[in-house]
Amino acid sequence: MQVTPNESARPGKRMNSQVAAAKAIKRCRELAGITETPGQTLRTFLSPAMRECMQVVGSWMTAAGMSAAIDAAGNLRGLYPGTQAHAPRLLIGSHLDTVPNAGAFDGVLGVMLGLALVESLEGRALPFAIEVVAFSEEEGVRYRIPFLGSRALVGTVDRELLCAQDERGVSVREAIEAFGLNPAELSFPLLDANARGYLEFHIEQGPVLESEGLSLGVVDRIAGQTRGDITFSGSSNHAGTTPMHLRKDAMVAAAQWICEVERIALSIQDLVATVGRLTVHPGAGNVIAGGAQASLDVRHPEDAIRRMAVEELVGRANSIAVSRGLQAKWHMHTETSAVRMNTRLSHLAFEAVCKTGSRPLRMTSGAGHDAMILAERLPSAMIFLRSPGGISHHPEETVRAEDVANALEAGMRFLDEFEKDLAGTEEDMHA
Amino acid sequence: MQVTPNESARPGKRMNSQVAAAKAIKRCRELAGITETPGQTLRTFLSPAMRECMQVVGSWMTAAGMSAAIDAAGNLRGLYPGTQAHAPRLLIGSHLDTVPNAGAFDGVLGVMLGLALVESLEGRALPFAIEVVAFSEEEGVRYRIPFLGSRALVGTVDRELLCAQDERGVSVREAIEAFGLNPAELSFPLLDANARGYLEFHIEQGPVLESEGLSLGVVDRIAGQTRGDITFSGSSNHAGTTPMHLRKDAMVAAAQWICEVERIALSIQDLVATVGRLTVHPGAGNVIAGGAQASLDVRHPEDAIRRMAVEELVGRANSIAVSRGLQAKWHMHTETSAVRMNTRLSHLAFEAVCKTGSRPLRMTSGAGHDAMILAERLPSAMIFLRSPGGISHHPEETVRAEDVANALEAGMRFLDEFEKDLAGTEEDMHA
Repeated sequence: MQVTPNESARPGKRMNSQVAAAKAIKRCRELAGITETPGQTLRTFLSPAMRECMQVVGSWMTAAGMSAAIDAAGNLRGLYPGTQAHAPRLLIGSHLDTVPNAGAFDGVLGVMLGLALVESLEGRALPFAIEVVAFSEEEGVRYRIPFLGSRALVGTVDRELLCAQDERGVSVREAIEAFGLNPAELSFPLLDANARGYLEFHIEQGPVLESEGLSLGVVDRIAGQTRGDITFSGSSNHAGTTPMHLRKDAMVAAAQWICEVERIALSIQDLVATVGRLTVHPGAGNVIAGGAQASLDVRHPEDAIRRMAVEELVGRANSIAVSRGLQAKWHMHTETSAVRMNTRLSHLAFEAVCKTGSRPLRMTSGAGHDAMILAERLPSAMIFLRSPGGISHHPEETVRAEDVANALEAGMRFLDEFEKDLAGTEEDMHA
Repeated sequence: MQVTPNESARPGKRMNSQVAAAKAIKRCRELAGITETPGQTLRTFLSPAMRECMQVVGSWMTAAGMSAAIDAAGNLRGLYPGTQAHAPRLLIGSHLDTVPNAGAFDGVLGVMLGLALVESLEGRALPFAIEVVAFSEEEGVRYRIPFLGSRALVGTVDRELLCAQDERGVSVREAIEAFGLNPAELSFPLLDANARGYLEFHIEQGPVLESEGLSLGVVDRIAGQTRGDITFSGSSNHAGTTPMHLRKDAMVAAAQWICEVERIALSIQDLVATVGRLTVHPGAGNVIAGGAQASLDVRHPEDAIRRMAVEELVGRANSIAVSRGLQAKWHMHTETSAVRMNTRLSHLAFEAVCKTGSRPLRMTSGAGHDAMILAERLPSAMIFLRSPGGISHHPEETVRAEDVANALEAGMRFLDEFEKDLAGTEEDMHA
């Protein structure tokens, strides 16, 4: 618990944010009960559970004085008008979909904080409108393609994406139509022309803030990623009858390489490299492995360093294979570049957190977020909340109430800062 | 191809053994077509394919002057009588069951060579009877328990084994009854009281004879085995958001240990140690592994050395886990002691091979065989045939025709040696 001069100087405001934080947490837990899988939380793109979830959130939006609507990508969008028609617009949001057996806060908390910030205004209009966006799809569970919701806002849902099929052969286009929406509208960006910025609150999903003893972080950039597979091919053979020196064991080759992945990742600052999956053939206890396929996930804030590291890791796989008389084959699935958050908006977020008396950590996000997609067309900023135990994508995923209260206060400060900045920008424009 | 003075001195005999070898190989390939899985070879304990296989082999036995019968464990036993009733008896055999997607020679060749040896006598009776035994079960596929056939001969089929169930819930007892046999007979050893020895021909299933450029080996002993699992427990976490130094990655711990298994095995003569299976949880490319379960298979001719090696390997797993803040847990499934083949009978086998002009390799079998079980009650010997490429348990498993011819000639010499030895033994008994 952080007690600071600022907080003690305004006990009433702190009390309000604590109450609002408790309400936001309660709402997240309530929404976790709206699921496709009884006993676990799962909400995928345009599922019946997602419709029910949007109905509940939509009713909260309406009660807070917002007009709520679902766009052609199934995003729930609540508009809290500004003092004037066609006022500049600030988007605040995150996603409502989840991974299988999810926690209650990943994505959902960002939407609930947007809603809570609007509620904190108690009907008072600002010189800018606030649009709370609850994205329909970020995790990529149903179509194995993430960010469907945010891509619709920036206009990068293409024909190929609309034709992608889920496990039951239902295309994105068909799913949208079946939900009662019009996929033709996705030919253009669904982002409003008056939008001036996007703010996303999200749980960190990692252990860094906790290990630093800090409540909130401001994201500088989202790391780029390389993902692929390395396949080692040796010779499957009898575990009892093949002497050690006559083996071409793909399991040991993969093991040696996995140790190298760790060693190299530890030697490069801010690099993370992970082998999370290893499939061994034939995979029997009494048979020497003839094949081993290992996944590789490499992330770094600097694309050049990431690419160099991947090259080194693939090179190591090859030299291990050669030295053992095996073959190694690298197949890259995806490569995404690092995305910088908007400097100006991130500065506002940083100042906003500071003004609550918390010291924010400037950090890189190792995970992708909707803000990464929105950043293509809109100044975007992200505020991370500490993840207890670093746990995420798991039913034990949680948040500390004090961190949610801090985030809410930071959000209120951000609205002030954004208003001032907007005035400055408009002045600049008229100067 | 090995040409030796002995061979060139008796071209007629060599020609006969080449023809008989070609016939034995042809029969193995024919039997490979009798299968439970079209397009692959699979014959499990008391399956319809096994019945069909035994009918074919039984007809060959009968044609060779043997009386053929199926015992209560489903073993096919062909008796070629000696010159007298109640003559001493030599058993020659191996197994007819196979692993899934098997080759044509593992087990089957040993039965075909027994049959060919009887055929080579062309009806001539010896002072001892020959019983060709085609074991119904050695691989342990159907019940995950190997050696059902040979255990029945030595009388170690117990109540627990009879109650074991296959995947469909059918017990061993029920399978025996359904086949039309009487499980009650298994209370006593099915071995004949006149049995004096057991000879098994088997493909090596490893690369040693080939790497030595030799045709045949005589097995001194069958290595003891320890089999179990090591489970590493760490923390599953997000691959993008968890810095390297804050991870408890079970995959890397397992990988480090697998490298140690190889290093330690290479440092101890004649030791083989294999990790053939690794199951990683949750096993997703973008999730740090929280758990990893690795199989361990350790074999050595000396039990004390094997036990010491297992202790060292388990100790290394623990220290790797401790140094990384993980836990390691060792679960041993099975431990079998090394089994020595009978010195006298193995000497006869060695002499027999030498007399064909081939130099036999004295070797340890890293794999278990029926001879290991028979050795509990009967002097037993094994002759290995070179496995091209060391390949076994695979459709590409094969044999060289010249090696099969050599084995046949060695078998004929063995019959001579056994007869002389028997005469000596009987004389000893009457002295």
